[in-house]
Amino acid sequence: MHPKPLATARVRDDGFADRGAEVTRFESFLDASFAFTITLLVIAGSEVPDSIAKLVNALKSLPTFAASFLLIALFWAGHDTWSRRYGLDDRRSRALGFLLIFLMLVYVYPLKMLFGSFFAWISAGALPAKFPINGVAELRAMFYTYAIAFGTLGGTMALLYWHAWRQRDALALSAHEREVTRGEIVRWALAPAFALLSAALAWSLSDRPAD
Amino acid sequence: MHPKPLATARVRDDGFADRGAEVTRFESFLDASFAFTITLLVIAGSEVPDSIAKLVNALKSLPTFAASFLLIALFWAGHDTWSRRYGLDDRRSRALGFLLIFLMLVYVYPLKMLFGSFFAWISAGALPAKFPINGVAELRAMFYTYAIAFGTLGGTMALLYWHAWRQRDALALSAHEREVTRGEIVRWALAPAFALLSAALAWSLSDRPAD
Amino acid sequence: MHPKPLATARVRDDGFADRGAEVTRFESFLDASFAFTITLLVIAGSEVPDSIAKLVNALKSLPTFAASFLLIALFWAGHDTWSRRYGLDDRRSRALGFLLIFLMLVYVYPLKMLFGSFFAWISAGALPAKFPINGVAELRAMFYTYAIAFGTLGGTMALLYWHAWRQRDALALSAHEREVTRGEIVRWALAPAFALLSAALAWSLSDRPAD
Amino acid sequence: MHPKPLATARVRDDGFADRGAEVTRFESFLDASFAFTITLLVIAGSEVPDSIAKLVNALKSLPTFAASFLLIALFWAGHDTWSRRYGLDDRRSRALGFLLIFLMLVYVYPLKMLFGSFFAWISAGALPAKFPINGVAELRAMFYTYAIAFGTLGGTMALLYWHAWRQRDALALSAHEREVTRGEIVRWALAPAFALLSAALAWSLSDRPAD
Repeated sequence: MHPKPLATARVRDDGFADRGAEVTRFESFLDASFAFTITLLVIAGSEVPDSIAKLVNALKSLPTFAASFLLIALFWAGHDTWSRRYGLDDRRSRALGFLLIFLMLVYVYPLKMLFGSFFAWISAGALPAKFPINGVAELRAMFYTYAIAFGTLGGTMALLYWHAWRQRDALALSAHEREVTRGEIVRWALAPAFALLSAALAWSLSDRPAD
Repeated sequence: MHPKPLATARVRDDGFADRGAEVTRFESFLDASFAFTITLLVIAGSEVPDSIAKLVNALKSLPTFAASFLLIALFWAGHDTWSRRYGLDDRRSRALGFLLIFLMLVYVYPLKMLFGSFFAWISAGALPAKFPINGVAELRAMFYTYAIAFGTLGGTMALLYWHAWRQRDALALSAHEREVTRGEIVRWALAPAFALLSAALAWSLSDRPAD
Repeated sequence: MHPKPLATARVRDDGFADRGAEVTRFESFLDASFAFTITLLVIAGSEVPDSIAKLVNALKSLPTFAASFLLIALFWAGHDTWSRRYGLDDRRSRALGFLLIFLMLVYVYPLKMLFGSFFAWISAGALPAKFPINGVAELRAMFYTYAIAFGTLGGTMALLYWHAWRQRDALALSAHEREVTRGEIVRWALAPAFALLSAALAWSLSDRPAD
Repeated sequence: MHPKPLATARVRDDGFADRGAEVTRFESFLDASFAFTITLLVIAGSEVPDSIAKLVNALKSLPTFAASFLLIALFWAGHDTWSRRYGLDDRRSRALGFLLIFLMLVYVYPLKMLFGSFFAWISAGALPAKFPINGVAELRAMFYTYAIAFGTLGGTMALLYWHAWRQRDALALSAHEREVTRGEIVRWALAPAFALLSAALAWSLSDRPAD
């Protein structure tokens, strides 16, 4: 753990000293991975449209793309804020950062599929889904997927803040910074909690065969 | 908003102090996304040619590729200039930056298609288009697409400069810098204005069925 | 060879002065390549699943993806540690760095295939492989591939540390740093040694035709 | 043009002051683009092999991949050296840098094809080419492609050095630095000269129909 001396650190709007202003190589690795992941959302299953009909159809997947984009941006910004606040670049921070990249890469396609089905459902089919949800069993499977994705990603962020919390003395966190750190642990831990809840809800649905 | 102290800032050729010389993580995220977007223009629908005929055919899409490349480079350079001038890295700057990435990713394929049709048209078919424009209805649809893409991208840039303008006192902008900032807002806002105009033009065309 | 003056260097947990804190352009090139390679593992042969069955099937390739991901992360972290420790950015360092990128790009698909077959084998087919291993001849071919990949990658890392070792005086390495450097040479050179051993083992297997 | 004050610049092994140590955003944009381009060489036309035969076949394209990789690395290193030596980040430097990216992206597939045919030819077919060269007309077309690619890329590098040469007083280049700069202009300008020569050679070949 290598916090920068506090004297040289600026204080940000959120009351945190700027411990991680210097971009580390791990951060630029993570940034590149997340930037690719966001771009993957466009590549995957896309091609340059060769008719007006296809162009219009492609534009209909905009809400799905926007939702996936926002989700990835949310977790990228989460990690960016975390690393700016504490400037940690130790073995555990990296392991958790790699885990975040891994989970993001794993979920990017399932989440795109999920959002597609979701928007097809709330638009009553006006926005096309690549696959329709047939029956409760499949609905349950989708709930599980979403719960696992959101839960593990949020859980990783909570672990990152927990890791910073354990080093609060070495980092010389101020009273305000300690309070915010505690708050962030709770805030991100809500994701796995919510995930467990929605999984439990999905479980409670009766299992009727789809036709 | 975290402007760097003016004392350490160099002054550039355009008369602006160098407030954003230090590369932030958001900037490197945006850079990677734009670099990837430019590369997408090559990947998408391309493959290693396996005959001389295909090689020649691939080279015929050069003007389309160049036009798309220039457009992306234009907006990347726009954001780069903006962030060097003001060095803003707050929540709103990032939201607008993410919007720029999002719009760029959304438009990259439709624009490639548009430019392809355009060059096929002005070369009277010597340069092949992936799809021909059939009738006025499709021409109108293409105008709309172009207008929306160029308008929203330019509008986002205008909002970025507007955001800097609102903080002109906190940033301690000089009289010259204020003048240039006002000019940039107008310059970029011309894009959505022009877009609305061309959309209105397209609208005014009579809607005859294509055959 | 341009070591930074020792006075300005912080000392890290591993007892090494921080000679390479400043990110060079070659490092960011290498980072982008590795980040892209990791993302390739997802793209390659993947597509947005369009049914629950396909989603479940895609999730079954998770162990393969995780193993490949870990291997790439291992070598990236290896290079990152190396360059932070010695801060070398000379012609030879770059040549070896380029070699690392090249080997990684070459092996990414074969390794994904290898891990897939491995997990299909240890799960007795519960996790599907893209291709089954038919007979000893093919098993031997896979061993060779794995041995060559792991051996050459590890060998490149050993050469990097050997390169730093030869400059131990110019770098003003401490006694502790010299000891660790020697240890790293041995540690990474174990990979090609192990590779030769496993290749020899594969060679010794009798060559019966597969059916 | 914004050279850093000479006082803070280190002197490198090549006798050049380190004017461009600080990584600019344009450089990281160029780095990301080149890193993608190198990775494209793997993606394009590749897929995770699903049999031993395909694995062996994929490994046979190694020389082609290595040659393309080396060529891209050569030009990347050329630009990196240039920007470290002069630290120029003005409009013209960027325009030429964008041109380098553009040309690289345009040529990546044709060059892969060229190298593939070349290695198939010198190995008398042991290494497979995606397409065979049929007759002198096609051989000539390949010469042209190679000449144009290598010539324009080298020409762009020569222009970059020429741009630095014109600012030799503003950059306060030493006598040694001026000499090297002149040498680099000549060295890179050899590429287009050689290209014109090989194009002339190809032209002089008689044009017999292929069968």
